[in-house]
Amino acid sequence: MTHRHRRARAIGLLTALAFASPLGLQALQSRPSAPGQSAAVAAARSHRAAHGARILAEFAELLAIPNVASDDANIRRNADWLVAALRSRDVEARALDGLGGPPPVYGELEVPGATRTVVIYVHYDGQPVDTARWSSPPWTPTLRTRAVEDGGDAIPFPEAGDAIDPEWRIYARGAGDDKAPVAAILAALDALDAASIAPTSNIKFFFEGEEEAGSDHLEAVLVEHADLLAADGWLIMDGPVHQSRRPQLFFGVRGYAGLEITVYGANRYLHSGHYGNFAPNPGMELARLLASMKDEAGRVLIDGFYASTEPIGAEERAAIEAASAYDDRLRAELGLLASEAGNAPYLERMLIPSLNVRGLTSGTTGATARNVIPPSATASIDVRLAKGNDPEAMLDLVEEHVRAQGYHIVREDPDPATRTAHARIARIDRSPGYPAARVSLDTPIARSVIEAATLAAGEEPILAPTLGGSLPLYLFEAVLGTPAVGVPIANHDDNQHAPDENLRIANLWYGVDLVAALMTME
Amino acid sequence: MTHRHRRARAIGLLTALAFASPLGLQALQSRPSAPGQSAAVAAARSHRAAHGARILAEFAELLAIPNVASDDANIRRNADWLVAALRSRDVEARALDGLGGPPPVYGELEVPGATRTVVIYVHYDGQPVDTARWSSPPWTPTLRTRAVEDGGDAIPFPEAGDAIDPEWRIYARGAGDDKAPVAAILAALDALDAASIAPTSNIKFFFEGEEEAGSDHLEAVLVEHADLLAADGWLIMDGPVHQSRRPQLFFGVRGYAGLEITVYGANRYLHSGHYGNFAPNPGMELARLLASMKDEAGRVLIDGFYASTEPIGAEERAAIEAASAYDDRLRAELGLLASEAGNAPYLERMLIPSLNVRGLTSGTTGATARNVIPPSATASIDVRLAKGNDPEAMLDLVEEHVRAQGYHIVREDPDPATRTAHARIARIDRSPGYPAARVSLDTPIARSVIEAATLAAGEEPILAPTLGGSLPLYLFEAVLGTPAVGVPIANHDDNQHAPDENLRIANLWYGVDLVAALMTME
Repeated sequence: MTHRHRRARAIGLLTALAFASPLGLQALQSRPSAPGQSAAVAAARSHRAAHGARILAEFAELLAIPNVASDDANIRRNADWLVAALRSRDVEARALDGLGGPPPVYGELEVPGATRTVVIYVHYDGQPVDTARWSSPPWTPTLRTRAVEDGGDAIPFPEAGDAIDPEWRIYARGAGDDKAPVAAILAALDALDAASIAPTSNIKFFFEGEEEAGSDHLEAVLVEHADLLAADGWLIMDGPVHQSRRPQLFFGVRGYAGLEITVYGANRYLHSGHYGNFAPNPGMELARLLASMKDEAGRVLIDGFYASTEPIGAEERAAIEAASAYDDRLRAELGLLASEAGNAPYLERMLIPSLNVRGLTSGTTGATARNVIPPSATASIDVRLAKGNDPEAMLDLVEEHVRAQGYHIVREDPDPATRTAHARIARIDRSPGYPAARVSLDTPIARSVIEAATLAAGEEPILAPTLGGSLPLYLFEAVLGTPAVGVPIANHDDNQHAPDENLRIANLWYGVDLVAALMTME
Repeated sequence: MTHRHRRARAIGLLTALAFASPLGLQALQSRPSAPGQSAAVAAARSHRAAHGARILAEFAELLAIPNVASDDANIRRNADWLVAALRSRDVEARALDGLGGPPPVYGELEVPGATRTVVIYVHYDGQPVDTARWSSPPWTPTLRTRAVEDGGDAIPFPEAGDAIDPEWRIYARGAGDDKAPVAAILAALDALDAASIAPTSNIKFFFEGEEEAGSDHLEAVLVEHADLLAADGWLIMDGPVHQSRRPQLFFGVRGYAGLEITVYGANRYLHSGHYGNFAPNPGMELARLLASMKDEAGRVLIDGFYASTEPIGAEERAAIEAASAYDDRLRAELGLLASEAGNAPYLERMLIPSLNVRGLTSGTTGATARNVIPPSATASIDVRLAKGNDPEAMLDLVEEHVRAQGYHIVREDPDPATRTAHARIARIDRSPGYPAARVSLDTPIARSVIEAATLAAGEEPILAPTLGGSLPLYLFEAVLGTPAVGVPIANHDDNQHAPDENLRIANLWYGVDLVAALMTME
């Protein structure tokens, strides 16, 4: 079966309607797809309908290998399994060893004449587990009739030919986050091969082995293998679809910068009776400083804070508007009458930088509170960045604001001479972080992925111009100069990072269809 | 020696100059004293010059009895010793048992024809000890040539007739806080007796046994023994003199009220990337709320906060002005370039209510800070009260201010229905405390005590209209309707509440002279 992708042949066009979309079929609203792509999706549906039991069995085999990044021996078993699985599909595959940490697994499927190259990213490591809190052991894949919290019963894995309910779920660490796309990719390759449909792009695979451990070696790998990983776009298969179960794509992630600000009063704890009204109160000073940074309407008041942010395009505006119908439900779920900026749309708020007080400390509160004037007060702040914001430059703006409030800025706790030379002293500790990444919705790669997902799902996906989480997506852009689009497939209620992680079968089927569509984009 | 006070006879007037004041003699600035009072002070000086060794030996005997309030057996030994010591001076004395806790020791010296009755308050219990940190055992009274941190050597207690250096110090728990006044009282009684000078007021003694443990039974004792303790004034012999070693009197203490304010965001910790800019940030909301309460100039902005405060009188103004020369040194010692309200005088600041953030908590800072939006933020606040402020009414004002900022106020963490009914929710937990107490400087009792202290010290004392600390002085005023004046004698560097507590001999001598003067006020 070598050089399978060269054996492509035309097949009859099966209509998308022949196979009900597991995510709920709606009238297709997207532009008409290329016939080849529709055929690929049809082939995927046909394949998973016929060979569902085999797909689940192979998935379970992968899920049975423990996959915590720090577990060297098992991580190696995962990598070996992935290399073998790709090679059995005629993908040139190998582990990218030698740079430390769990090795990424790399694979390549070259398509003669293809003018586009895409890299499909997945990570095969998972979060550490607290086995005692699992309903079934985390690396003993268990099939259930529905979610365990809804009373799902464990059932045997199906035999060939058995009907498979798309509401079944597979329980195992990594089921949703993030081995599911591997199963989808392998099934899609098989489906295209069975239908003799060749991909239309050169396809590269990059399966990371330490995403949940912080991706410490990712940048070094990208730098070292920049030529190998050259592409027109990265497709990041990670994360869940929308809570409404509608498919979702994301085109960026926020960046990050952090800082800690400590303001000082007297050189020691003081009795608040003896010194209250005389010695400055750091807690109150910090409150005034923070209050000067953001107004009640949710607008950051720091000069220039929004100036470098890339404007929101017309297509992003439309996507924001389309998704804002879910905001009321989100507020209700969070127990909020109102969200910031007068209930401004969630997705819009993700496209501008934020300033968040993640921690406040001064003296103590509650049962241990004492009648003191604490010598200092500290705020830990994180600044989420939008496209265009430079992490260091944003921290400079915050720092300049603090200085403009009359503070002398230091990098260490002030010495006695510094204390008596300045009425207001702020220590600032900076954590620069990394920039945001975002692909505009009107770029060719974005349009092609939207089309593929629409075809696979049978409905328009929700388009998130930016996800809230700060994945190191910027690395693909910063190191390789390549745009990255997020194409998640897992159910939102997959308990990722938690006990009883699972994948809903319907979401796996969507993944198979989606990968087939992504491999055959016009 | 019964009815000693009836054997008073005139003695020759000894000039104050004949005995150098241990606190540094200055030209006497006070009004001329009555001849009888000057004679009493002269008798005190003469007595301590002649019998210093005996006074120190008796003081050491008292200091050798452990005095932590929870140590029932030793507390009883202290009480028995005190009763015996008073009785041996013909004072009718007994322990006021039966109301729980360490018993106060009560004594009474009736003076025929006296038109005034004063109660001298001392407490005989001391703070718990951490013996390992003491240079000599806390209940093995040790005489040193000077402060142990200045290299003072332990020396034997003097024999009768030995010269006694007033810079020597006695080390023991309770030496400064607060057994020193007991030694001063006993010596003064002996001095007056030796000189056949009778007190001019009826004198009552009230030696509390659980001040350091919170005075839990004090109110009940005052209520139960209100008739016994009826007086024209209480003289509170507790606390240290001024840091400059000048004598100090205090005429009030601040009151206290506390509250804790918690503001709420979403119903759980949120990822600050996913929700920053959308979900309200409790730390920032709390900062804005606190910032609305007090301005940069140190003025509390809560409506009516200063309205109930008793105005500062002309004599208090003069006392404040006289003491403000020490403020620069205080700022330097605290490591401050500036104190609140544009370096307003320390004592003036003690005469208006304060609002102090004693604790701030939200999420965490430093190494444990996480990228979250915490679900709540809490400020613990103490309000120090001035004369005229009612604790509950002051908390009402703070609460009204919070309400005026748009907050719905709750007493428990909000339930889901409350959360989604109000955009801003603040939980307020109140700790009402107690009111301030203050005697005006132009009252007869205040004038008499100032005159006595001036005569005893040989210089004008520093007059603190109000001490910063919140002793339950208000009880004497509230329960008994009796004004209370603070007449401390201990050195400010007596390490009270700490290891190596001590009393400087010069301060004991001042105490002897002072008690003699207080007992013979016109």
